Amino acid sequence: MSSAAMQQPTPQLFFQTINAYQRTEALKAAIELEVFSAIGGGSATVEDIARKCGTSERGMRILCDFLCVIGFLIKDTQRYSWTADSATFLDRRSHAYLGGAIEFLLAPLVKEGFQDLAAAVRKGGTVIPDEGVMGPEHPVWVEFARAMAPMMAMPAQLIANLVDEKPDRKQKILDIAAGHGLFGIALAKNNPQTEVVALDWPNVLEVAKENARTAGVDDRYTTIGGSAFTVEYGHGYDLVLLTNFLHHFDPPTCETLLRKVHSSLADGGRAVTLEFVPNEDRISPPDAASFSIMMLAATANGDAYTFSELERMFMNAGFKRSEIHPLPPSVEQVVISYK
Amino acid sequence: MSSAAMQQPTPQLFFQTINAYQRTEALKAAIELEVFSAIGGGSATVEDIARKCGTSERGMRILCDFLCVIGFLIKDTQRYSWTADSATFLDRRSHAYLGGAIEFLLAPLVKEGFQDLAAAVRKGGTVIPDEGVMGPEHPVWVEFARAMAPMMAMPAQLIANLVDEKPDRKQKILDIAAGHGLFGIALAKNNPQTEVVALDWPNVLEVAKENARTAGVDDRYTTIGGSAFTVEYGHGYDLVLLTNFLHHFDPPTCETLLRKVHSSLADGGRAVTLEFVPNEDRISPPDAASFSIMMLAATANGDAYTFSELERMFMNAGFKRSEIHPLPPSVEQVVISYK
Repeated sequence: MSSAAMQQPTPQLFFQTINAYQRTEALKAAIELEVFSAIGGGSATVEDIARKCGTSERGMRILCDFLCVIGFLIKDTQRYSWTADSATFLDRRSHAYLGGAIEFLLAPLVKEGFQDLAAAVRKGGTVIPDEGVMGPEHPVWVEFARAMAPMMAMPAQLIANLVDEKPDRKQKILDIAAGHGLFGIALAKNNPQTEVVALDWPNVLEVAKENARTAGVDDRYTTIGGSAFTVEYGHGYDLVLLTNFLHHFDPPTCETLLRKVHSSLADGGRAVTLEFVPNEDRISPPDAASFSIMMLAATANGDAYTFSELERMFMNAGFKRSEIHPLPPSVEQVVISYK
Repeated sequence: MSSAAMQQPTPQLFFQTINAYQRTEALKAAIELEVFSAIGGGSATVEDIARKCGTSERGMRILCDFLCVIGFLIKDTQRYSWTADSATFLDRRSHAYLGGAIEFLLAPLVKEGFQDLAAAVRKGGTVIPDEGVMGPEHPVWVEFARAMAPMMAMPAQLIANLVDEKPDRKQKILDIAAGHGLFGIALAKNNPQTEVVALDWPNVLEVAKENARTAGVDDRYTTIGGSAFTVEYGHGYDLVLLTNFLHHFDPPTCETLLRKVHSSLADGGRAVTLEFVPNEDRISPPDAASFSIMMLAATANGDAYTFSELERMFMNAGFKRSEIHPLPPSVEQVVISYK
């Protein structure tokens, strides 16, 4: 093809993007039908997979071919096999299985925010009634805590290694909006002298306490039920965790919260923030930058903040300095801010 | 990054695919708000675009950044501009404007087939009641005829050039499932001796007749209302057009239809089929191969057929031979079959 022909406008990207929802639905169907578990270790024919999943062969053939097109399976003559990613994250027997995350990521309330995105753009925030997903004790956060825990186990361990490199001293940690609690729990598992105080809505804390018991750290695990904006935190914390929390609010609201965090920290204490942090251009890297539109759809004023915006909020709240750490292979980054 | 680290499994593709529906909704919102028309010829700030589209600046900034991430806009410092594709296909003032196609591509009935795709895989066909979109005089085909016409103008002209290279003789053409009628109309415009008979549901033919009048070929344009499987076609056609029709049916049904087509053709006549034709592996090229899942979701037995499958159907129906022609920049291809 000549370079002029290659540059000729084509409707392909338009067509692919308008149909992108079909990718979502196909992956969801494959997870629901346990296609990746059925393929098991080896390669498999469509007859095998259809039998194991209890589906028609025709439907399974079309689904598996589409999963090849979108990068989740490999086809060699008439046999399908895993990619490295689908073996790790989509076989139910894998310790890193993420399939359950669709229960939150595709929850009706989460998708509802996108049903009339033009209206959210007009308004500048979610058009879901009652503050979207931010209302007190909203059940979506229990769903979040249960469904997203497997997705967070890896970043939780990476953060524990990053912020508590020599786990040889007593530590007191406040885990704000703890959710599943995995971030605080990873630090407690890492260091037997660590005590964790988890803060969240009371209904959500039940999930965190369950996870703390399973991890065997429940004797060093206490909780505060309520809104992070109104409850008393206590004092003298070495670390305060703010994982996937600030993106729900506008900067002045974040600063109000960060002032509370600042005064709850011991001298030399650190706030540890996990966030989708786009570059200053706000359009890269793609995964972090894309998170903004989720906040537009689902919250009144939330956003994916750049490092300079986060730095400013922490500075305005009294912190001395902040530093940013990538957390590969996670697409999120960690900001550590010093009192 | 080391090559081992690059090969480390990452949850990125999972996350991107589960969220792919957000791309659909963002492009839909941008079309509804006429963002691409607002950017106009030059580059524009978010303030300008928000004012022209009547939206909040915050919502428009987030939408435009996301449109950069997914490839529809370019950002340079704080100004947004078109890509070549979005200038051509998404500015309402462009002759090639395609935005209206969302009225069909994202019609509730089309999307409905994907709402429980696992069920369609189990069953091996659509779970939409009443034969999905294939019922008689289904209003979705009027929507199709109106919304998709702009998207079909280019392939219609390419087909006219391909099959009537020397437009210097009398031709009689049957356009089966004519829809908007653009394929037959392009041939009639190409050759003043061409007569077109368009066949479709009577409600859909109103759109085709309207388009024939606008094109000034209505004196050589007649219609047959009804099902292509039951009405009489007449005889002596030089060309029979089968554009985007066979994919709705299983091969035996297609062959029944093709036998009717064969007997309606004059000696030496040709059937001209426009289709999404995947390669024999059924997973490439991506756009054509992806069309199968749409047929699984929306029809009882439809599919995107490979060339060898189409060839066999035409041969079984009595055709001597078939040949395939790409139609760039369209992702569809043309199969010409000789009586």
